[in-house]
Amino acid sequence: MSDNSKQIPQSIILISTPDKKGLVYHISSVLYELGLNIERNDEYVDKENEFFFMRTQVSGESDEYILRDKIKKILPPHSTLKIQPVAKKNIIIFCTKENHCIGDLLLRHDSGELNAHIQAIVSNHNILESLAQKFNIPFFYIPAENIERNTHEKKLLEVITQFNPSYIILAKYMRILTSDFVSHFENKIINIHHSFLPAFIGANPYKQAYQRGVKLIGATAHFVNENLDEGPIITQDIIHINHSYSWQDMQKAGRDIEKVVLSRALNLALEDRIFVYGNKTIIF
Amino acid sequence: MSDNSKQIPQSIILISTPDKKGLVYHISSVLYELGLNIERNDEYVDKENEFFFMRTQVSGESDEYILRDKIKKILPPHSTLKIQPVAKKNIIIFCTKENHCIGDLLLRHDSGELNAHIQAIVSNHNILESLAQKFNIPFFYIPAENIERNTHEKKLLEVITQFNPSYIILAKYMRILTSDFVSHFENKIINIHHSFLPAFIGANPYKQAYQRGVKLIGATAHFVNENLDEGPIITQDIIHINHSYSWQDMQKAGRDIEKVVLSRALNLALEDRIFVYGNKTIIF
Amino acid sequence: MSDNSKQIPQSIILISTPDKKGLVYHISSVLYELGLNIERNDEYVDKENEFFFMRTQVSGESDEYILRDKIKKILPPHSTLKIQPVAKKNIIIFCTKENHCIGDLLLRHDSGELNAHIQAIVSNHNILESLAQKFNIPFFYIPAENIERNTHEKKLLEVITQFNPSYIILAKYMRILTSDFVSHFENKIINIHHSFLPAFIGANPYKQAYQRGVKLIGATAHFVNENLDEGPIITQDIIHINHSYSWQDMQKAGRDIEKVVLSRALNLALEDRIFVYGNKTIIF
Amino acid sequence: MSDNSKQIPQSIILISTPDKKGLVYHISSVLYELGLNIERNDEYVDKENEFFFMRTQVSGESDEYILRDKIKKILPPHSTLKIQPVAKKNIIIFCTKENHCIGDLLLRHDSGELNAHIQAIVSNHNILESLAQKFNIPFFYIPAENIERNTHEKKLLEVITQFNPSYIILAKYMRILTSDFVSHFENKIINIHHSFLPAFIGANPYKQAYQRGVKLIGATAHFVNENLDEGPIITQDIIHINHSYSWQDMQKAGRDIEKVVLSRALNLALEDRIFVYGNKTIIF
Repeated sequence: MSDNSKQIPQSIILISTPDKKGLVYHISSVLYELGLNIERNDEYVDKENEFFFMRTQVSGESDEYILRDKIKKILPPHSTLKIQPVAKKNIIIFCTKENHCIGDLLLRHDSGELNAHIQAIVSNHNILESLAQKFNIPFFYIPAENIERNTHEKKLLEVITQFNPSYIILAKYMRILTSDFVSHFENKIINIHHSFLPAFIGANPYKQAYQRGVKLIGATAHFVNENLDEGPIITQDIIHINHSYSWQDMQKAGRDIEKVVLSRALNLALEDRIFVYGNKTIIF
Repeated sequence: MSDNSKQIPQSIILISTPDKKGLVYHISSVLYELGLNIERNDEYVDKENEFFFMRTQVSGESDEYILRDKIKKILPPHSTLKIQPVAKKNIIIFCTKENHCIGDLLLRHDSGELNAHIQAIVSNHNILESLAQKFNIPFFYIPAENIERNTHEKKLLEVITQFNPSYIILAKYMRILTSDFVSHFENKIINIHHSFLPAFIGANPYKQAYQRGVKLIGATAHFVNENLDEGPIITQDIIHINHSYSWQDMQKAGRDIEKVVLSRALNLALEDRIFVYGNKTIIF
Repeated sequence: MSDNSKQIPQSIILISTPDKKGLVYHISSVLYELGLNIERNDEYVDKENEFFFMRTQVSGESDEYILRDKIKKILPPHSTLKIQPVAKKNIIIFCTKENHCIGDLLLRHDSGELNAHIQAIVSNHNILESLAQKFNIPFFYIPAENIERNTHEKKLLEVITQFNPSYIILAKYMRILTSDFVSHFENKIINIHHSFLPAFIGANPYKQAYQRGVKLIGATAHFVNENLDEGPIITQDIIHINHSYSWQDMQKAGRDIEKVVLSRALNLALEDRIFVYGNKTIIF
Repeated sequence: MSDNSKQIPQSIILISTPDKKGLVYHISSVLYELGLNIERNDEYVDKENEFFFMRTQVSGESDEYILRDKIKKILPPHSTLKIQPVAKKNIIIFCTKENHCIGDLLLRHDSGELNAHIQAIVSNHNILESLAQKFNIPFFYIPAENIERNTHEKKLLEVITQFNPSYIILAKYMRILTSDFVSHFENKIINIHHSFLPAFIGANPYKQAYQRGVKLIGATAHFVNENLDEGPIITQDIIHINHSYSWQDMQKAGRDIEKVVLSRALNLALEDRIFVYGNKTIIF
């Protein structure tokens, strides 16, 4: 959960490493030695793979270079270390026609609740341009019709390169991105899929759900990888429905869960609370 | 659930009446005689009070006066009959400082999803004026400071009278309305309270929840009556929390459930699916 | 919801039929004419297929033959009519090794809460025999090892034929029944599958869920048809999990949702509240 | 989540203490020095009260006396230290007439799923004696009628003293225990209350819920202290209901959530995952 702003700088240390006796001791001894105070500490050991995950929020003045160097020395081979300041991150949002997910993020941005700076909105349609304008966010209309997929994605890349965001949010962006495009942003693209994955992969999940006669519908936020709707799941949720729902009713009802699930996932990413490990996430 | 628009006019018939043998037969015979087709029919009998509730959606051309007259004739004394066209209703929204509930309604309004026309926004602060302007909704800033409660409410009434809305939505309007004010709009004011009522009535429910150490927080949409937070409940929902939530964290997390619960309740009202009976609601 | 027992006999009338103007009027006129009182009435029109479903609970003395005859006369071709007394039904439970679903049903049976008489328990293992004995329910141990599938199912059929139950409940019965066997009991076999279908069809859904890294696990109660895990869904529910769950943890946690979902579905069946229409259910 | 049993002994170390820089370092250095391996580690800092909570599961051979001594030395004043072996605990269950909560626990006990040994069942009625006998658990019928409250509680104490359980579970025990009785078992008595506390404290919560017209009902597991239904909450959950539920229907539906919530809370206690701090719980 969020802290109140303090004068003392805070950092998040993210360590994932093959497990080894004494890791907590060795890591905490470095922090103690450098005069850093542990504000919050979460650990998890994946017993199956003997892999250790640690997220530590520390406060205090310290040279990040020295901190990084000292921790690196005590970590086993094949370990990963990230150190992030506690600060707002930059994001870009992709959307198509529906306003509920992007509108929800814009409202959170506007009230100051969102722990991010929305740099730009990109869309393959211009329907949501007026919404972006209302909130004074640069809008890039990059139509995809009558051009090749690669050409379209090159234009997307140009915009992204210009801003260099920490995350790209697919807020009901209804086009599939190529593996090539995705490979530039490993674990940096967050998508909201309108079903409880792995059910109803692909197009028109609500129609699929209607055909199957399910009694619940859901939404799943996940990192995008090269396989459609198969990236690491961040969070998911459902709502109950009944026989009276047409697929359009499902779609309408589903929007409420889509926007909530997407913003939950985004918040977790913005607070550096997610580790991706294989095709799974560890979330503190 | 919603129907697709059709050329044939549709109406909602709402009947609440002391129970009596043959009611369904007598009512359906009137509809049959007038050539009306039942699109959807819901009934409920309150066994404790021997009271019957029926909501029937019919399609077909008919003289509403004749329909009303014929049904009235077969209903027992102390019964109530309402006939509403299936159509968008007018609403006014009251708010104070928080943008999540009102913003959510504005987005639904903007996309055409909301089955209502937002006529005006009224607030005791001017913080949300720019939000109202973004969506081109008239905004009435009626500050409450340094004036008497009655004077303030008179100004509210003037705005409402001007628009004559079907419902007034308190979208996190943080002032208590007097019994006198409320009495003008019986079962027409819908409030969102930020707790699972009847727990945490009154001010600062999240602080109360934090003090009590609950493991879930909730939101309740209800009609407003003369007793604070004690009106008929329309719908409510909760989310799970844990010890790590400060009351500010609860407040932030709670916003997601508040806006969803409020819009669900509003949709039920807009579709004429709610009966108020005593201090309870029957919802079809 | 269920009524307390009364002296006056009650029946459930279940009608599914191509939609036609005046159905409610014509049906209710028969009931009125025969002096039957409508205690509860639910209707649903499937607009896509123009099909009408009606479940009416009536009280009063009447000749079932006459009632059936009079309703049949007013129904269009291709309609279905069932009339059931409000009474306890007989059921048989199949199980294998796990005690949570069957134990839950036995406890509800023992307290009188279950609206059914458990005639027998059938298992391909003898592990749960002592549990059946504790509750004085006949237990049939029909091992499946080293015999042909058909031979095994013949033995199952012999037991079932002996009791002629209204429903067969697969309370974590871990064998697949053949299409041939299933065809004897159309919409009479209720299974609990330990996933939110259609995700994780087939064996070891918890292992599949673990592999996929989902953040929720579920259970689905459905009627069994010739295709594994593809029958009409009655009800389903989920619980939230996180990265710390091994598949065994998921299995353990999942048991709580399995038993609750199964008993909910059984209650709906026992109260004649389910219509099966194509591969879907309409539930009142 | 639970580990499979291993040959190497495991212990749970529970520390709650005023916060202080270097705590994690100092504690982990003791564990490292004694050759203990951290299997799981959870920490929480209550910022408001500057209090630190740590639950560490360690594996390895070590002298508990030395371990305790070494940790005590590094903890600030007013800190608490508990060291528990990872092992089954003994419990006693109190009940009255309803079989769902106690039956659920007996089934879990019978299958080996419950991480506890049920030593005895105590009841103020003899209705559930046959259930206890089915599962071979000693049953103590201690009627409360026509005797003084103190006399009755003395008899309860005699049974408890005989067994010396780690926890006493009130599985729908429908009598209020005196402050004097409760004071013998601080944070050792777990009760299931049939509402989402703090709503509907006291007798007949379902009747209260029915009167209020709520749209959800719940259950709360909490430690019992001297104030009725006001002890520290361990876990709680809800289910959605509607206008058609009589209070008896609520009671019936509520049983499913009561038993699940109670067993979840018990599992948390049995795995030493709960800290009580003031009137709240911190749960890892």
